[in-house]
Amino acid sequence: MSKSWQQDILTVLDSTHIAFLSSQGKTGPETSMTPFAVYEDSILLHLSELAKHTKNIKQHPEVGLMICTPETKDISPLALPRLSLQGNIHKISALDANVAKDTYLAKLPDAEPLFSFSDFSIYQMKVHHVHWVGGFGKARKVSIETWRTLFC
Amino acid sequence: MSKSWQQDILTVLDSTHIAFLSSQGKTGPETSMTPFAVYEDSILLHLSELAKHTKNIKQHPEVGLMICTPETKDISPLALPRLSLQGNIHKISALDANVAKDTYLAKLPDAEPLFSFSDFSIYQMKVHHVHWVGGFGKARKVSIETWRTLFC
Repeated sequence: MSKSWQQDILTVLDSTHIAFLSSQGKTGPETSMTPFAVYEDSILLHLSELAKHTKNIKQHPEVGLMICTPETKDISPLALPRLSLQGNIHKISALDANVAKDTYLAKLPDAEPLFSFSDFSIYQMKVHHVHWVGGFGKARKVSIETWRTLFC
Repeated sequence: MSKSWQQDILTVLDSTHIAFLSSQGKTGPETSMTPFAVYEDSILLHLSELAKHTKNIKQHPEVGLMICTPETKDISPLALPRLSLQGNIHKISALDANVAKDTYLAKLPDAEPLFSFSDFSIYQMKVHHVHWVGGFGKARKVSIETWRTLFC
């Protein structure tokens, strides 16, 4: 199969365990780091009720999320392939919670002890807009239909 | 000198070339990746007028910025030391532009060719609030006075 930007998106999603969440705070947008996993065509985050970003998203569930190739010495920091997602985030439904937990822990086994903390829950970000930057000057919008086909 | 969280903040600032900017978009907050440098107690970004985040910050100069230790196999992704900054961002004054350019290029020499592009300018984020996460469960607010003393 020839290498394509669709494959490059999947490579970025596999390259890192962390994402950068933009949530709406009282005085402006705020960035926080949060580990993530992909579940179907959505993104799972495991968030504490005590964290500021969780309070923010309860007020404003529209969020941004960036998933970026980790820095290495082999690639200029200006050219790191990355995804910028926009969407809505909500606590996952009870119906999906067990599968989501297994999916999350398959990527992030270190998080297992946090599932015994009552303030943590899995949140699901449903993705509405996808912007892909494959390198310097290589940016493109990805339709939501194309995004979904990546996970079929 | 004993190791302290103040030193840990400086270590994080030195550990990475990239930051994650939250800017206010039309439908909600958006995250973008942008290389950064520290200039006195402010943060420098080199942004293109063509980029969405630049259009966003012209409308809403209140931004969030996260600077996070890069992922490695040696540390859990849940525990990466990181800084979350809030502040206002504006194009740097002509008075400071040359020193800012030298400071930026000392950290990011790969960006030198971009200074010949007319759509790029240096923006300066003046930091108003600092939140430090030194690891899992190690979070603290840093006063702006303490932040400033880090760069004296």
